[in-house]
Order: sequence, then structure tokens, then C-alpha cells
Amino acid sequence: MRLLKKVAVIGVGLIGGSLALAIKKRKLADKVVGTSRHRKNLLLAKRAGAIDEGSQDIGIIRGADLVIIAVPVNAVLKLAPKIAKIIGPGCIVSDVASTKQEIVMKLDKVFPRYVGAHPMAGSEKRGIANSDDKMFNDSTCILTPTLKTDKKALAKIEKLWSCLGAKVITMPASVHDKALSFVSHLPHIVAFSLINTVPVQYLKFASSGLRDTTRIAASDSEIWNDIFLTNRGNVLAAIGLIQKNLASIKKAIASGNSNSLDRILKTAKKKRDSL
Amino acid sequence: MRLLKKVAVIGVGLIGGSLALAIKKRKLADKVVGTSRHRKNLLLAKRAGAIDEGSQDIGIIRGADLVIIAVPVNAVLKLAPKIAKIIGPGCIVSDVASTKQEIVMKLDKVFPRYVGAHPMAGSEKRGIANSDDKMFNDSTCILTPTLKTDKKALAKIEKLWSCLGAKVITMPASVHDKALSFVSHLPHIVAFSLINTVPVQYLKFASSGLRDTTRIAASDSEIWNDIFLTNRGNVLAAIGLIQKNLASIKKAIASGNSNSLDRILKTAKKKRDSL
Repeated sequence: MRLLKKVAVIGVGLIGGSLALAIKKRKLADKVVGTSRHRKNLLLAKRAGAIDEGSQDIGIIRGADLVIIAVPVNAVLKLAPKIAKIIGPGCIVSDVASTKQEIVMKLDKVFPRYVGAHPMAGSEKRGIANSDDKMFNDSTCILTPTLKTDKKALAKIEKLWSCLGAKVITMPASVHDKALSFVSHLPHIVAFSLINTVPVQYLKFASSGLRDTTRIAASDSEIWNDIFLTNRGNVLAAIGLIQKNLASIKKAIASGNSNSLDRILKTAKKKRDSL
Repeated sequence: MRLLKKVAVIGVGLIGGSLALAIKKRKLADKVVGTSRHRKNLLLAKRAGAIDEGSQDIGIIRGADLVIIAVPVNAVLKLAPKIAKIIGPGCIVSDVASTKQEIVMKLDKVFPRYVGAHPMAGSEKRGIANSDDKMFNDSTCILTPTLKTDKKALAKIEKLWSCLGAKVITMPASVHDKALSFVSHLPHIVAFSLINTVPVQYLKFASSGLRDTTRIAASDSEIWNDIFLTNRGNVLAAIGLIQKNLASIKKAIASGNSNSLDRILKTAKKKRDSL
């Protein structure tokens, strides 16, 4: 017997499309259906073999035993009540959003069997055209259950991500959001700010250093707008800390304090080498 | 006839070692000799086929028609007078330092035939063990001649870097240092500051975003200490600009100004996509 009967993926973009494709390739569900704002994405998803059926009408999710919401954070919050009206009481609902506290708090109230998830995979690219059924191989998927989370639903979502090749870890949504503000959200803020600082006329001298530090600045603005605003407190605190570190290195350079500068650079190198 | 008779490379580290190796592999000189502070590096360089002879005694450079100084900026300034006492009047002297204004100003006075050069290649790794004779293939080498620069010496250095596969461009040292403060020095400062900001307990959640933005934070502290301090004015100005950009994005997030945030992120994406 397969793990799931009917899986519905809301939003067949980079992550949703890859997830649908991975479920199909590994035959984890009898049927996978998808929805999208754009008809073209559904055609592409079907052609790629990611979904059996697609529709712009959310009614297509009816009868699913698992609904995975894979749209930007703000859209998740808007869609939730509509989804709740369509699905049956036994249906498990999960998501793939990059911030969890706000979403988990709200969706826990809307759905009786909700499990928050954040597969830490993807890239600065977007859309079903860049989907990859091996995207979650050797990745980490963080689940953020609450006291209210249904144990069987949690076990099934854990099983799903394990089957897709991910290492599954669980933590409270608040811990997730704080950790991610440092290892993901702040690097994006830094990359956006750095590329915006480089005068256009010097871009032609860019070498691998600038390219690597700013790769993620090519990320989608809609997705990151939502992430920053739904993890506002943690993100602001993390920006505050890097502002202090920038001020320290600036001070060491301005005063020609080679010893202090050396300590800063050596600490950084040691930490980066440990990654 | 070969381009050069005897080439002496002062400092057979990552760049100096790769340069010596590339000259040997392409048979651009009759003989390549090297010096190093460490005997071990000379043995490694000789074993790698980068040099014909090596010595910790700088006297080995005697009779060279080209001396290339490939040590950190401060060491360049200390070594220059010693080198000047040994070489003949026709010997061309060049370097590979990442900042040019201070070095060019000083070496132009010390050597009659000096040409400032900055091959934009290398990595966060260090030492002869990481050398690569193809390092300069498809790279850019910036030359920074002055009004005093000997035209024939300049032509020979241009020829050398072209033969090593680099695209050669020339500009005043002041323009070089300003451009590099943005496309190289600031990204390093940002990478050092970013990794120093991430609490150790969250490093285990790092994905490709943090890894890429901080790769160059593993760079050598001695080299970067020198670079920052010998390009102080430009580096401080560049830090000042990214501090403004960080303050802007922080303000947009704090006030929940989604439109302003969207503009910042879209500008960044467009600029990064153009790289």
C-alpha cells in the first residue's frame, strides 16, 4: 500500500513542483494533483510528470488525504480558510514556508491535522521549470509540531520527507525562526544590501568573491518580502548584530589597529572553516 | 627566443607558485627561481615543477630580467629596498598585490622599471599546495602604469599575462583601488562580519546561502589585514555605503513597508542578474 492516496500541492513552483515530482517518481501516492495561479505552470507541471491533474480551481484538492501548501507566506495565510472549507476532517495539511511562527500559530487553529514543515532546499531560481525530483536528497527538513499537533499526522509527514531523502528534525517554530534568521534570512539581507552598494560601473570587475557573496541576491522579491515581514523581530535583531560587527571592523580599519583587525579576521576564518 | 631569460618569484605561495608554474608549463622563461620565508614551500614548489631553483636567500634573484613580488602588501614594501640592491638596471620588477596606490607610489621610486599588476584570480585557499598553472586562464589582470612607467617594460608584462591566458586591462592605481574596494574588499568585510554574527549553535543549520555568502571569510587574515589597511579610505567609504543600505532595509522591515522593501529587493535582483 502506498504512503498516501491523493496528495494535493497548492502552488507548483520550484519547491511545490519538485515535491510533487519527487512524490510521483518515488510512487509515494496513488495520485498527485496541483493548483496554481497560472495555467501555464499547471501545463508545465503535468508535462514534467509532477502532477496527474492540475486546475486553477482549488476545488481539485477535494478528497485529498494530504494537502501541501507551497506558496509565499502571505498567500498561505489567505488561502487557509478556503482550503479548510473543501477538505475532509481526516486530511493532513502541511506547508513548506521558510518562516514558521506566524503560520503555525494560525494554521494550527484553522486545520485539525496541521504539521508545519520547512524543507531547507531550493535555490535563488524560481518556478516549475527549475524543479528537480532530487532536490530534497541529503537536505534537512525541519518540522515544527505544537502541543496540539496530531501524532499520527506528524509521523506521516516525517515518513514522507524521509522517503524523499531528507534528514528530518523537529523543533518549536520559535526556535526555527530564530535560527533561520541567522543562517538564511540575514545572509539574504546582506547579499541584497551588498549588490545594491556596488556602483554599476564597477560590476564588470566582479570576480568569484562578489559573485558568491551575492548569488542569493537574485532571489525572488515576493518570497523574501514575506519572509522578512513574517520573521520581523528576529530579522531586525540579527541585522542589529551585524551592524555592530561592521562598526567594529570599520573602527579597527579607521584606527589602523592591525591587532584588533587580525583578531576579527582570525575568528571569522576559524568559524567559517568549521562549517 | 623565449619571452624571458631568468624570472624570479619572491614568495611561492598560492599566486606566486601558480604564476611560476604557469610560466614553466608554457616555457615562457629559460629559468624560474623562487624565494620563500619557509624552506618547505621551496621544496614543494620545486617538486611541483614551479621553480628550477629555490632559496631562502634573496640573493638567488641576481641576474633576473624579471622579478615578480608575490608576498602580502606590507612585506612588499619592506622587501623592495633589498631587491633594489641586488638586481641589475635593466631588470623589470612587477608584483601581484591586491591594492595598488600605496605600492605603486613607493615602488615607482625604488625601481627604474616597475610595472604594477593585480591578477584577479586566486581563492580563499593559500599556499603552493593549492597552486594551479591554469589559475589565470580567462581571468583579468589589471596593470596600473604611471607616467613614469617604462613603455617596453609595460609591453613585456602585458605580453606575459596575455600568454598566461589573462585579459589585460590598464587603469590608474587610484581607479583600481576604488573599484576593488567595492567588488572585492567590501565583499570580504561583509563575509567576515556575517560569519562572526551567526551564533555557533545555529551553524549546523547552514545551507548553501550561508555557505556561499561566507566562503571568502575563510581567507587568510594576514593578506586581508594588509589589503584593508593599504586601501583604508576607499574601504571605509564602501563600508559607510553598505551601512546606509542595511539601515534602509532594516527601516523598511521595521515599519512593515512592503512596497519600499519590494523596491530594494527588486533593484538588487536586477543588478545581480546583470552580473
